[in-house]
Amino acid sequence: MSARGPIEYRDASSEIRAVFDDIKRTRQVEDVNNFWKYLAHDPATLKRTWESVKETMTPGALDAVTKEMIYLAVSVTNGCGYCIASHSAAARKAGMSEKMFGELMAVVGMANETNRLANGYRVPIDAAFDR
Amino acid sequence: MSARGPIEYRDASSEIRAVFDDIKRTRQVEDVNNFWKYLAHDPATLKRTWESVKETMTPGALDAVTKEMIYLAVSVTNGCGYCIASHSAAARKAGMSEKMFGELMAVVGMANETNRLANGYRVPIDAAFDR
Amino acid sequence: MSARGPIEYRDASSEIRAVFDDIKRTRQVEDVNNFWKYLAHDPATLKRTWESVKETMTPGALDAVTKEMIYLAVSVTNGCGYCIASHSAAARKAGMSEKMFGELMAVVGMANETNRLANGYRVPIDAAFDR
Amino acid sequence: MSARGPIEYRDASSEIRAVFDDIKRTRQVEDVNNFWKYLAHDPATLKRTWESVKETMTPGALDAVTKEMIYLAVSVTNGCGYCIASHSAAARKAGMSEKMFGELMAVVGMANETNRLANGYRVPIDAAFDR
Amino acid sequence: MSARGPIEYRDASSEIRAVFDDIKRTRQVEDVNNFWKYLAHDPATLKRTWESVKETMTPGALDAVTKEMIYLAVSVTNGCGYCIASHSAAARKAGMSEKMFGELMAVVGMANETNRLANGYRVPIDAAFDR
Amino acid sequence: MSARGPIEYRDASSEIRAVFDDIKRTRQVEDVNNFWKYLAHDPATLKRTWESVKETMTPGALDAVTKEMIYLAVSVTNGCGYCIASHSAAARKAGMSEKMFGELMAVVGMANETNRLANGYRVPIDAAFDR
Repeated sequence: MSARGPIEYRDASSEIRAVFDDIKRTRQVEDVNNFWKYLAHDPATLKRTWESVKETMTPGALDAVTKEMIYLAVSVTNGCGYCIASHSAAARKAGMSEKMFGELMAVVGMANETNRLANGYRVPIDAAFDR
Repeated sequence: MSARGPIEYRDASSEIRAVFDDIKRTRQVEDVNNFWKYLAHDPATLKRTWESVKETMTPGALDAVTKEMIYLAVSVTNGCGYCIASHSAAARKAGMSEKMFGELMAVVGMANETNRLANGYRVPIDAAFDR
Repeated sequence: MSARGPIEYRDASSEIRAVFDDIKRTRQVEDVNNFWKYLAHDPATLKRTWESVKETMTPGALDAVTKEMIYLAVSVTNGCGYCIASHSAAARKAGMSEKMFGELMAVVGMANETNRLANGYRVPIDAAFDR
Repeated sequence: MSARGPIEYRDASSEIRAVFDDIKRTRQVEDVNNFWKYLAHDPATLKRTWESVKETMTPGALDAVTKEMIYLAVSVTNGCGYCIASHSAAARKAGMSEKMFGELMAVVGMANETNRLANGYRVPIDAAFDR
Repeated sequence: MSARGPIEYRDASSEIRAVFDDIKRTRQVEDVNNFWKYLAHDPATLKRTWESVKETMTPGALDAVTKEMIYLAVSVTNGCGYCIASHSAAARKAGMSEKMFGELMAVVGMANETNRLANGYRVPIDAAFDR
Repeated sequence: MSARGPIEYRDASSEIRAVFDDIKRTRQVEDVNNFWKYLAHDPATLKRTWESVKETMTPGALDAVTKEMIYLAVSVTNGCGYCIASHSAAARKAGMSEKMFGELMAVVGMANETNRLANGYRVPIDAAFDR
C-alpha cells in the first residue's frame, strides 16, 4: 500500500469533488474507486484522465461491453493487477458473461503467443496487408 | 528479413501442405500468409499453432470482428509490427469500420495510460471488485 | 515471499560484506535494502550490479533526482512493484516533491498512451527526425 | 507504411486544421509531424491527445528537457521506434546534450535490468519504503 | 484473489477430470496447481493449453531443465508473479541448481538492459547477421 | 538509421579501441558489431556493458549455447529487432540447431501465452511453491 493513501470525498477540495461528483453521476455509483481517490493527489491529472476515460468509453461504433473487454485485454497483457481487477468487474457489469470472458482470455493468450512467434521467426509483412 | 526465408507450398512436405490446405479452406484464401510459411520450419509448432488459432478465433460467445479487435489490441500493446499489420487487415475483412478502429485505438491508448497511473500511484484493489 | 530469503550482514561472507559496506558508506544508510540481501545469493551479480548502479547513478550531466525519476518512469512502465516502491522512496529522498511526482506520472502515462497510438496507426518516421 | 496514409493540411477538415494550427503555433513549427497527420483519421482522438500532450508537457515543477527525457525513457523501454525517433529529436531540441543522452540511456538500461532481478529473486518490499 | 475461485477435482465435470488426471499422471503429482484449477472455468482452454504445454515441454532437442529455464526467463521479463513462482519451482525440480539460477538471472538482466540500449541508440542490424 | 552513426575503429579514441580490441580478442572476430560501434558514443557505458556481458556470458554452470538461447528468449519477448537478429546469429554460432531453435520458440510462445492466462484468471500462488 502506498504511504500517501486515498483522498476521501469528505477531505477533498471543491475541484476534486466536482470530478468525483461527475464520476458518480455518470456511472450511477455511490462512491468512486480507489483509482480516482489516489489520482486526486494531482487534481489536473484526475480531471484530464476522467474526461478522457469518459469520452473514450462512451458507447459509439463499439458498445460498452466491447470497450471494457478491450481495456481488460490490454491490462492482462501488461500484467496490471489493479486494472485487471477493476476492468473484470466493469466488463461483467457491462454484460460480459463467463463464456465471453473465457473466449476473451483465449484470444489474449493466443495473441501474446503468436506475437512472439512472429518476432522470433522475423516474419516480413505480406505486401497484401497494405493493399 | 530472416536468412531462413518462407517455405512455399511447392517446396513443402505433405505434413506442412495438410496445414496449409486447411488454412486456405477455412479462410477461403488462395495462399497462406508469411507467418505460416515461416512457422513451417517447425511443422509441430505450425500444426499446433494453427489448430489453436482456428479453435480460439471461431465465432462463439464473441463474434469474429470482436475477436480480431482484441487480437489487434494485444498486438498494438506489445508493439508487434507484423501482427499489427496482419490483424488490422483481418479485422477490417471481418467488418471493422474506420470508426470502430478509431474507437479501438482510443481505448487501447487510455488503457495503456491508466495501467501506468495505477502502477505508479500504487493503488490497492477495492474490496468491492471481488464481491 | 521467496523460499530463499534475504542474506543478513551477520550471515554474509566477507565478499558480500564488502559490497554491503560500500553500499552503506556510499548511501549513508545503516542497512541495505532487501534487493541487495536477495542478490547476495549470487555474489558476482551482487558486486557487478552494485558497481554498475553506483557508476550510473552518480550525478553527472544529470543530477540525482532526475536520474531517480527516470528509474521510476521505467519501473512504472514495466510494472515492477518492488522497484516502484524503492525508487519512489529514493526519488523523494533525492528531492522529488509531490508536484514533481504528479508531473512525472502524467508524462509516463501520456508516453505509454501515445506509444500505442503510434504503433496502431503504423506511423512512419519523419525524415526530419534524422537530420 | 500504412495503407491509410497521412492527412495533409490542404486535405484536412476545419476541425483538424484547428488542431494542426494550435500545434504549429505552440511548437513554433511550419508543419506537424506524421503522428498528428495519422491521428487525424480520428478527429476526436487527435484533439484529445493533443490537448493532453500540451497540458502535460508544459514546463511546471519539471522543465521541458526533463519531461522529454522521461518520455524518451518510456519509449525506449517499450521499444516504440517512431516514439524513440521523435522524442530523441524533441529532447535534443529542448536542450539534451549527447552527455545527458548517454546518462539517460545508462539509467534506462540499468532500470530495465534491475527490474528483472527484483522480479526473479522475488524480493519483498522493505517496510521502510512506506514510512 | 479472484471471486471465481479454483475448481477442485471433487467438483469437476468428467471433461475437466480427464485433463486433471492426465496432468497428474504425466507429472507424477497428487494434485494439479492452481493455474489448472482456475483455467478449468473454460474447459476448452484448459484442454488446449495443457496439450500444448505437454507437447512443448516434452524433452527433445532441448532437455527439461533448459526448457523450464527458458519459461522462467520469459516470466521474469514479463513480471508474471504466479509464473515466476511456479516455474522457479518447476525448474528446480527439473535440476536447476542455485548456481544455474544465478547465471540465468544474470543473463536475463543483461538481456533486458542491452535490449533497451539497442532500442535507444537505434542500432541498425548488421548485414552479417543474415548471412 | 540514427543520425549519429557508428564509430569505426579508425576514428575511435584509445579508450574505445581498448574495448573493441578486447571484444575482438575474446570473440575471435575481425570487427565488432554495430551495437558496440553505437555504444561507443558513451565510452563509460561501452566499457561497463562489455565487461558485464563478458562476465555473464562466460560459460559456467550454464554453457554458451544455453546462455545465448536465454538471451534470445528475452529479446523475442521484448520484441527487440536488433537483439533478435544478433542473438539468433550468436546462438547458432554457439551450436543452436534449427531443431533447438524451433523448440526454444515453442516454449517462448507458450510462456507468453500462459503468463497472460495466469494474469487474467488472477491465479493465487500455490503454497507448495515456497516450500
